[in-house]
Amino acid sequence: MKAIKIGILTVSDRASTGVYDDQSGPAIENTLKEYLTSSYTTLYRLVPDEQNQIENCLKDLCDIENCCLVVTTGGTGPSVRDITPEATEAVCQKMMPGFGELMRATSLKFVPTAILSRQTAGIRNQSLIVNLPGKPKSIRECLDAVFPAIPYCIDLIGGPYLETNPAVIKAFRPKSS
Amino acid sequence: MKAIKIGILTVSDRASTGVYDDQSGPAIENTLKEYLTSSYTTLYRLVPDEQNQIENCLKDLCDIENCCLVVTTGGTGPSVRDITPEATEAVCQKMMPGFGELMRATSLKFVPTAILSRQTAGIRNQSLIVNLPGKPKSIRECLDAVFPAIPYCIDLIGGPYLETNPAVIKAFRPKSS
Amino acid sequence: MKAIKIGILTVSDRASTGVYDDQSGPAIENTLKEYLTSSYTTLYRLVPDEQNQIENCLKDLCDIENCCLVVTTGGTGPSVRDITPEATEAVCQKMMPGFGELMRATSLKFVPTAILSRQTAGIRNQSLIVNLPGKPKSIRECLDAVFPAIPYCIDLIGGPYLETNPAVIKAFRPKSS
Repeated sequence: MKAIKIGILTVSDRASTGVYDDQSGPAIENTLKEYLTSSYTTLYRLVPDEQNQIENCLKDLCDIENCCLVVTTGGTGPSVRDITPEATEAVCQKMMPGFGELMRATSLKFVPTAILSRQTAGIRNQSLIVNLPGKPKSIRECLDAVFPAIPYCIDLIGGPYLETNPAVIKAFRPKSS
Repeated sequence: MKAIKIGILTVSDRASTGVYDDQSGPAIENTLKEYLTSSYTTLYRLVPDEQNQIENCLKDLCDIENCCLVVTTGGTGPSVRDITPEATEAVCQKMMPGFGELMRATSLKFVPTAILSRQTAGIRNQSLIVNLPGKPKSIRECLDAVFPAIPYCIDLIGGPYLETNPAVIKAFRPKSS
Repeated sequence: MKAIKIGILTVSDRASTGVYDDQSGPAIENTLKEYLTSSYTTLYRLVPDEQNQIENCLKDLCDIENCCLVVTTGGTGPSVRDITPEATEAVCQKMMPGFGELMRATSLKFVPTAILSRQTAGIRNQSLIVNLPGKPKSIRECLDAVFPAIPYCIDLIGGPYLETNPAVIKAFRPKSS
């Protein structure tokens, strides 16, 4: 059975220089703990909003660490330093537009500025990379929306079998492929 | 009056090698029969999930056969062999993101894994190319969602005038362009 | 305090050659008058559906005139001459897919042909460029949908502070960034 490794990448100039503590990475880690009943390990990384560093970190988590899933937080807005979606696209072979569409539509129920998020998702070899927003509350809303599709996506790209706690989140797998 | 030709392209490694019979192509053909009251002919093709073969087939259906509409089925997921959206984008001059958005939003009412579909649509010269999912049930859901806009789209790109059976599907044409 | 300048660019072969009067540009101007309580000036331009001319006009409104917001109208459909989204993408450093998604979803409540609109939005330096549809009625529907997020977007890219009349449209700014 394949070991399950999940990468968590916080992209933030301020957190990476110690101006404040990263709350988003831990929020993702806590959410995954609630979701998953499979045993897994998380790899946590923190980089500034520099495209090269984000790309290198994504490649490392996918290619060297073999994470089946890498979630990023931060850097998806319109500001000049926000570059996470571009870095994601640069390292992916396939883009998954449905993730960004659903996350924006979900966040839009809470705030009209949800349309300013440029978050996306894509596939690099056998890894799914998903951009999440920067704020813990929005992170949870977005993960709740897209996570039901993630275990099956990982099945399809040849990754390990993720099982969830159905009382918290229901992974959906179609009967016949 | 221009003859109406519609291309149906099934993209499937297994169906193209005879591992199973293609059910998706015939499902599209049956749906079109219910929709359209104009007389038309369909051209059916079946290719494996090879980008070159998909592209060549799309070009042939558009440029040589002059199909005003080409619908594909299959190859839109995240798996390594799924390459239909990339082949579609490679042969189109204009992409139509609204088709993929609406088809995913529609499928999402039925299954949370709808966000894994990367289906898109685009224009090549005077042909509209639309990617559909691989499963007959999802094909019908998606066609029901987007088909009302297709006859007017074909008008706008200089194609023939398609008429539908309004008891099954209502083509919408704005009063003034 | 920074002066607020807003560019309005009508893209239309027929209006630009005087076949009819542009109604879309004035419709945008009137809507902005209702929305904004900040004092601002508008710069109005009219060009044919030529990619070079659209790009040059966008660059001029952003780089020379320092408009914080440029809204275009027209040229977003599937027709061979419709090229506004491509011109927009060519001059932007960052694309904002959430604008097009929300505008199409909004127009879809009124007409099924909303999916034929390829309108998008993006950032060029300190300017937000937003494509609107060509018809005055659709323009208002789309602006009502996306405008609540626009003042905060302009804050984030370093532009001036736009204030709206909350009885007409509520600008939303999250409490903490």
